[in-house]
Amino acid sequence: MPPLRSWFSIPKGSHFSLANIPFGVISTASSATPRVAVAVGDHALDLDAFASHDGFLALSTIQPHQKVFSEPTLNAFAALGRPMHSIVRKYIQDIFWENTPHPKVLKDNASLQKAALIPLKDVQMHLPFKIGDYTDFYAGLNHAFNVGVLFRGASNALQPNYKYLPVGYHGRASSVVVSGTPIRRPSGQILENPTAEVKKPIFSPCRKLDIELELGAFVCKNTKLGEPIPIDEAEHCLFGVVLMNDWSARDIQAWEYVPLGPFNAKNFGTTISAWVVLAEALEPFLTKGLENDADVLPYLKEKREKTVYDIKLQVDLKTGSDKSTTISQSNSKNLLFSFPQMLAHHSITGCPFNVGDLLGSGTISGKEANERGSLLEQNENGKSSIKLEGGEERKFLEDGDEISIAGVCGDDAEALVGFGTCVGRIEPALQFEFQ
Amino acid sequence: MPPLRSWFSIPKGSHFSLANIPFGVISTASSATPRVAVAVGDHALDLDAFASHDGFLALSTIQPHQKVFSEPTLNAFAALGRPMHSIVRKYIQDIFWENTPHPKVLKDNASLQKAALIPLKDVQMHLPFKIGDYTDFYAGLNHAFNVGVLFRGASNALQPNYKYLPVGYHGRASSVVVSGTPIRRPSGQILENPTAEVKKPIFSPCRKLDIELELGAFVCKNTKLGEPIPIDEAEHCLFGVVLMNDWSARDIQAWEYVPLGPFNAKNFGTTISAWVVLAEALEPFLTKGLENDADVLPYLKEKREKTVYDIKLQVDLKTGSDKSTTISQSNSKNLLFSFPQMLAHHSITGCPFNVGDLLGSGTISGKEANERGSLLEQNENGKSSIKLEGGEERKFLEDGDEISIAGVCGDDAEALVGFGTCVGRIEPALQFEFQ
Repeated sequence: MPPLRSWFSIPKGSHFSLANIPFGVISTASSATPRVAVAVGDHALDLDAFASHDGFLALSTIQPHQKVFSEPTLNAFAALGRPMHSIVRKYIQDIFWENTPHPKVLKDNASLQKAALIPLKDVQMHLPFKIGDYTDFYAGLNHAFNVGVLFRGASNALQPNYKYLPVGYHGRASSVVVSGTPIRRPSGQILENPTAEVKKPIFSPCRKLDIELELGAFVCKNTKLGEPIPIDEAEHCLFGVVLMNDWSARDIQAWEYVPLGPFNAKNFGTTISAWVVLAEALEPFLTKGLENDADVLPYLKEKREKTVYDIKLQVDLKTGSDKSTTISQSNSKNLLFSFPQMLAHHSITGCPFNVGDLLGSGTISGKEANERGSLLEQNENGKSSIKLEGGEERKFLEDGDEISIAGVCGDDAEALVGFGTCVGRIEPALQFEFQ
Repeated sequence: MPPLRSWFSIPKGSHFSLANIPFGVISTASSATPRVAVAVGDHALDLDAFASHDGFLALSTIQPHQKVFSEPTLNAFAALGRPMHSIVRKYIQDIFWENTPHPKVLKDNASLQKAALIPLKDVQMHLPFKIGDYTDFYAGLNHAFNVGVLFRGASNALQPNYKYLPVGYHGRASSVVVSGTPIRRPSGQILENPTAEVKKPIFSPCRKLDIELELGAFVCKNTKLGEPIPIDEAEHCLFGVVLMNDWSARDIQAWEYVPLGPFNAKNFGTTISAWVVLAEALEPFLTKGLENDADVLPYLKEKREKTVYDIKLQVDLKTGSDKSTTISQSNSKNLLFSFPQMLAHHSITGCPFNVGDLLGSGTISGKEANERGSLLEQNENGKSSIKLEGGEERKFLEDGDEISIAGVCGDDAEALVGFGTCVGRIEPALQFEFQ
């Protein structure tokens, strides 16, 4: 299919081509109230302004619901359901298409262009959803294997359950933040000498601050306690996808995680990209996931063959001295379980879901050294270092380091479906009185 | 201090004496909109009706905020802060006192009594808070020890970290339900023969359905990412306490929990009691917790000596044949860490909190066999059985079993500070097409 061309200038190579139309929440200097927008090329289309200037006049189905675009989150829009997301996306594609059937709406309407089209550099992005519950999975097979090798050796790298179910844990919703939010280095209990016989912790800023390269998916359906989501319906409960960096304090984690799993090591910040790419926009990029040689139970068997996304992922580290180095290149194909499988598993007990719940994929590592999605793996838990541009090295993150994750689907520079970036910079730890 | 006597009839032995004044959310047949109330004896005082009939006329400080009582949750009231909770509680005590300084408000006001005083048997209770995040700790030392003995033997029962930090994990907020909500037996992956060499799961209804006797505490302060709550301020961030039953699927847990902790085994339902007892009402019942022979780090050291509550706890099991047996009697003194310590630890990394966040204490077991807070402990993971009234036995819960937890402070039958009950009944598992 040739790319949709627009009457509007969309730079070649933009993540936000007409094939995309991602949704987000913006505010501006002149209007500080957060509201819903889509990204098109280098601009945001303010859907609140668009709606109030009769932009949706040619789309009767959305008209009773237009107030969703004045909301400070995407929850109300998402709750309208996937058919409505599709209708709105296609209408916006129509409006921007060079042969738009509705030229009067925006193409030939200078005043609405002025009111609703805002350069991205002039918008402030906000957390796109009010997140009820956040769950982080561990479906990146190569990551689970690499970490298992580090801690248990190659012969025991994967636990017996790993291929039968998407292993996951409940995360902390309150510390999920939008791209650009600074992340303070956490302090807590660590073992100064983990191999010493006497295990007595000290209080310290984290010394092994790490990243996790992940995808996140937002839920767009409310379900009830006691009512599982069947695998074939799970896809319809997913609104869209973001990039995610699940910051991790490896030394705090090593001390605290037995027997109930990661806790403080993960709750000081999880960064997501600001623009949510609709599930529908990602459908052309569905592909097969990693082969699973375990015979999964029927409640996890998908009818469709292509279940995970082919999203090229890249992690860049910029030091305080402003030198940037690409430290990892991966692809979201490296998942053993799909988001629908995660949702089907998560709900099989009857666990209820709310619109805005967030599912993390787990760290997405490729097989090669430069495809690993965490520093823990890249540097074998501090045994080696990454060489950075300008001569510095890193075992783990230092204060002032900025991590930027990018993700994009497709090869046609005029039809990319991308996520923009997911960025966070490390601030120094707090000083405590008792230190 | 002699008990506060009331002009209003409060039955002897009521959990809701004038010394208590717990808060909850009610609706009634004639008014289905949930709103805020307090419990006094066998009645609820509907604070929405009370406020709209000028009940708070003599309390000027609350007047600008009276709309909080029309809300469907306690979040807005809780957000007013502990000094305001205290003022409102004391005012209601004053109003009900036999020598009330404000007799015209309620004592001599038959029409307001009719409008606002509703027999508890006629009210429907609702989940008291919109819960943002729910965290479950593991601070019941005897429970952790008993479970450790079962799975690792007595010499390794407690992990090295156990006494240095309140071990905890992020739970599932969406499945926290109010007392009385039926709990459906979850289905999921279990190992039919856990000791077999080949670990291949089957799909099955949970066969080891269990309870966990806990307390829950609600947070009443919003904090920011990167800003820990100091231990001496933590107490002021806690609104009040409820009874909690953290239903647990032990067979699902045994298979899934490595390496990231309990997940589906815990997210199908957590029941809390409906009336939240204010932290202030519990202050007279503060006592010393279990002695900790580890030297905890300064951020966990409380200035006060008495840090945990002396709440007598009891668990009753009623079978489908309506026979009831008391299966456990415990006390919340059996905690190694206090709620302020949990909050200080949870936030030390900078994890942010929201009003309505819920902290679970962990299972509260005494030292004796009949003081254990879970069936896992009582029956040594199915090796023994509890004998019930009427001749039945239980290793784990069966369909139709109803668990009722009660909790009360004090010995003076006219001045009890109690929680009422926390009740849930097990419904049969769903049948799945593929089974």
